[in-house]
Formats: sequence, structure tokens, C-alpha cells
Amino acid sequence: MRLATRANGTPDGELVVVSQDGARCLPAGSNASNLLAAMGDWSSASATLQALADRLEQGEGEPLEVASLAAPLPRSWQWLDGSAFDTHGELMQIAFEQDPLHHERPLMYQGMSDRFLAPREDVAFPREEDGVDFEGEFGVIVDAVPMGVTPQEALDHIKLVVQINDWSLRAFAVPEMVTGFGFILAKPASTIAPYAVTPDELGNSWQDGRVALDLCIDWNGERFGHANGREMAVGFHELVAHAATTRSLVAGTVIGSGTVANTGYAQVGSSCISERRAIEIIADGKPTTGFMRFGDTVRMEAQSEDGRAPFGAIEQQVVKHTG
Amino acid sequence: MRLATRANGTPDGELVVVSQDGARCLPAGSNASNLLAAMGDWSSASATLQALADRLEQGEGEPLEVASLAAPLPRSWQWLDGSAFDTHGELMQIAFEQDPLHHERPLMYQGMSDRFLAPREDVAFPREEDGVDFEGEFGVIVDAVPMGVTPQEALDHIKLVVQINDWSLRAFAVPEMVTGFGFILAKPASTIAPYAVTPDELGNSWQDGRVALDLCIDWNGERFGHANGREMAVGFHELVAHAATTRSLVAGTVIGSGTVANTGYAQVGSSCISERRAIEIIADGKPTTGFMRFGDTVRMEAQSEDGRAPFGAIEQQVVKHTG
Repeated sequence: MRLATRANGTPDGELVVVSQDGARCLPAGSNASNLLAAMGDWSSASATLQALADRLEQGEGEPLEVASLAAPLPRSWQWLDGSAFDTHGELMQIAFEQDPLHHERPLMYQGMSDRFLAPREDVAFPREEDGVDFEGEFGVIVDAVPMGVTPQEALDHIKLVVQINDWSLRAFAVPEMVTGFGFILAKPASTIAPYAVTPDELGNSWQDGRVALDLCIDWNGERFGHANGREMAVGFHELVAHAATTRSLVAGTVIGSGTVANTGYAQVGSSCISERRAIEIIADGKPTTGFMRFGDTVRMEAQSEDGRAPFGAIEQQVVKHTG
Repeated sequence: MRLATRANGTPDGELVVVSQDGARCLPAGSNASNLLAAMGDWSSASATLQALADRLEQGEGEPLEVASLAAPLPRSWQWLDGSAFDTHGELMQIAFEQDPLHHERPLMYQGMSDRFLAPREDVAFPREEDGVDFEGEFGVIVDAVPMGVTPQEALDHIKLVVQINDWSLRAFAVPEMVTGFGFILAKPASTIAPYAVTPDELGNSWQDGRVALDLCIDWNGERFGHANGREMAVGFHELVAHAATTRSLVAGTVIGSGTVANTGYAQVGSSCISERRAIEIIADGKPTTGFMRFGDTVRMEAQSEDGRAPFGAIEQQVVKHTG
């Protein structure tokens, strides 16, 4: 099942079910008027949504305009972003000139969730010199998760899978990390790709709580990377269980994988600029690639080997914030 | 103006205006049915609420039961907790056996905001050995704040002031800080005292964006500390401006001061157990005070010199979480 949210002037938008080919949709209606509400009552809402999906497969539905879409969740109560790709973590320590981290638990910070940007929305930052960077990720959306769940139990709470661009301002990252308090200035609002999909929609690409798809990233129209999501050191179910160690998770919580990265980065490239800069430091002693400039574009689309793109594409331009 | 939220079975509760003596209240009604909605339309809502406050001062109103109150904001879209008392920061580095932090900006992390505990609600944790600690703080609630505001502009966005118990599990604090990603396991849901008040309600105790009141804390009925809020190194307006450097702040964002602490801690005591342990380490080479046990209680009430308590009291018991 593929879900999307049409912008309708309300903060949560209008939930729609999307056909397999992405061309048509049906509004979810008053039983599941927006995705945040639907997550709070998923067992009931999902039955309603599945019935609509069945009608779409019979040919019903209205035309879907991707340009009219908000993020599947335009806002939520909680966004917890992990960093579950070891290759990314190791390279970032080089990029940030940090000592290796010794930690026994998954890395995770809480980020802003009052607003997720639409997949085609311009992203506005105050200064180029803050080090504007994209980060290609996968994420999951859970229903209510009790405190203390096991990873195996957590797997059943993963109701939807999403693709995320976790926008980062690198100039603030190291100063914020050395405080130990995590990221505020370095992590403005993230973007979510058009479609949130149920795990079964991913077929064999949903493996052990991981999204085994290539995340194809183009910067200003040039291929930047196509790392595969299967190399997560821990699966999403383990990230969910970690987050729920001392808190129950509110329905609609979004959990991120962190930047997708592969050991074979020489072949597949990277999912953020900082990581490429680290690879350049390793090779040449210094980074040569700069961060994004106003007017730059980024496109992100996870693709299966047969060319399917279950989440659709994020296509954004960076612009100067004008207060 | 003093506001409170009555538990009514909905996630956001019912907003009420409270009389000066705390004995009576009037429901805010459909124009401002809950505080989160009111923050989103403050200029209109505050006029409605002020009219009710005037009626309360004429003697109208129904009896207010503190036991029936939720947190003034039972949930919000964003909770950003600072650490603005230098004395606390310096002592915590001793408690945590950390090197001194060198940072140019206010310390701040994003914490869970999907749930704030009621002022009389039991607080449930899985394990005593996780180092259960209270943290007495002040906080502010803002309306929508544009990205890039100055501290002076930010002052006008501070619509309400609150008193907070930022519950902490110390066993996770250092392992999470060394990752640089901030706190997830170490920071479960916080508690907010009964009344959110407009800054003018604090009179001379609202000074340069600081709450110049003694925060009286009793642990198991014994006075633990009564540090004053005036020693913040930066005021709340500066914390708000800091948070808004690279993001606009959603209406209803709660910004915390961090644990209230004074240079004269030998006289006034502390607002969290960790800090007392640091003072013991300085004096005796080792901490002698343990963390909270199941069954322990904590009471927190900010008091003016003439004995007024504008926020009311937090009174909570720690219990074992049973899944």
C-alpha cells in the first residue's frame, strides 16, 4: 500500500491512497483524514486504506499530481534519527577530524518534527557558508510502541517505510557535537519523499528491518551516489527498540537510518557531501568538493533492480532564506 | 494571567483560566479550547483569556481541583532544553568526570515533547539503577518565531512562563553525551507545574528574560535546594534567538533553562541530585548521596519572597514501570 498527503491548507494535509503506477489516488476520507491521525488508530485505519487500494487496482481514482503533495507526514510528534551505517560514521569522523567514537548503543538524536518539507519544496537557508548538505536516508513510521519492547516486537510496530532528505548545516555540526547535547542549528527541517509505503510493498527489498534498495542521488543533475540500504549495522526494529528503552513512542514517531553508506563507496559514491569530502581527505589529504550553493538542486530516488521507485523522488532546490 | 489545563480524556485537555488565589477557574471555551491551539493564534486567544481572567477577579468561576490538572501543555510540537546556569554546567562536568566544555553558544538539546506529565502524576521508570534524578527548571512557551530573530525581538514572543521537572536517567547521560548526538534514553518525559503564567504575572520577578524566584525543592519531604533563577548566564530571549538561528519555531515550542543553580550552592543547595553528588566529590572525593528509589517523592515550587507560588507545585512519586 502506498500513501501520500495532499496539501490542502491544513497543517496535516489530506491523506490519499496511491495506485501502483502512481498515476491515480483516492482520498482516505473521514475515517483516516490525515496520516498522523491514522497512525494513532492504525488497525482500523489500515483496513479502510486497504479497501481504497483495492478499488484503485480496479481502475478507480482521480489523477495524482506530485506537485500538489506535502510530505506524507507534514508534521509529527517525534523524529528520532539514527546513524546506523558504520561506513558513514567512520568517514564522518574523518570529515569532522574527530577521535573515533566508542559506543555500545545505536547513535540517535531527536530532531525537529513540527514540519517536514514537501518532496518538491524549495529549501531556504540563511547562509551558504553554513555548509549546506543533503543526507539521503530511509526511515520508518511506527504506531504506539510500549516502553521496553524487544527488537522482534518492534518489527510489528513498523507500519510504514519512507525515504528522507535530512538537511544539514555542517558548520554547526562539530561545535554542537562537542557539547554532547546533539544538533539544533545543524539540523533544520527534513524532507520526506512523496510516498509512505507499507513494508510488504517493498517485497524482497524489505530485509531484516532494512531497505535493500539503491538510493540514487543526483546533485545538479549529476549522479552523486547510489548506495544500498542493506548495509545498516542494526535494522530499523533495533533502532525502534533502542528508542523505546526508557520511553514509550507516540504513534507517528519517525525513526531514521542515518545517511545511507556502503563499504564499497569507491564504486557507489556517497549520500551526503561531507562523506565525499572525507573520501577526498583520505585520498588527497584535503577536501575538494564544496557544499551546496543557492540555486543548486538535489534529486533522491530509491530504485529497485527492475527500476521501480516505491517512494517516488525528492526534487528540491536550495534558496536563500529571506525573512 | 494564569492558565491551566484540565484533563478531559483528550490528548490536549481543556484550557482554563485560573484565579489569582488558585481556587477558581473558568473554561476558555471554543475560541481557545486547548493551550496548543491557543498558542497558534495567541493575539486572538489572549484577548479571550484576559476577559475570562477579569470575570474571575469579579468572583465568578468554578472550583479548581489541582488533582484534575494535566500539564498546561500536555503535548507540544517541540521541546528545546537549554543549560543556561554556568554553575550547574561546571558542577556536572565534575559529576560526569568530563573535561571542561569550550563552547561559544548556549547548550541546547531537543527532547521529547509528545507528552508532558501532569504535576501530580506518578512517574514510572524501568530500573532504579538507571540513576533516577529530578531537575528543577524554568521554561517559556513561545508563539510562532521567525528564523533569525534577535534576542530583543524574541522577548516579545515569550508568551508564557512555566516551571518544569526535567526527569533524567543519569546512567545513560555520559554514554549518550560522548556520542555527541545528545540525549534519548537519558531524558524521558518531563513534568510541568500546574500553572503557565504570562510574564507580567511575575511582576519584578521577571527580569531580563529570567525568572528571579527561588525554586524550592523537597526530596522525600526534606528541603533539598532553593536556588534562584536569576543567575542564568543568558536569558530566555537569548535561548529563543539561539534556537531560531536556522529554523523558525512552531507556536507552542517550550524552551527550558536547564537546571537552576547558584554560585552560592553551599547556602542554597541544588536542583538535582547529580549536582549535589558533584559538590560531595569536591568536598570528600566521592559522592555519598544516591539517586532516587521507587517510592521516593519530589516536590518543586518556585516561591517569591512574599510567599507567592505563581506556578503552583509539582508533587510526584517515582514508581516502577510495569509493562
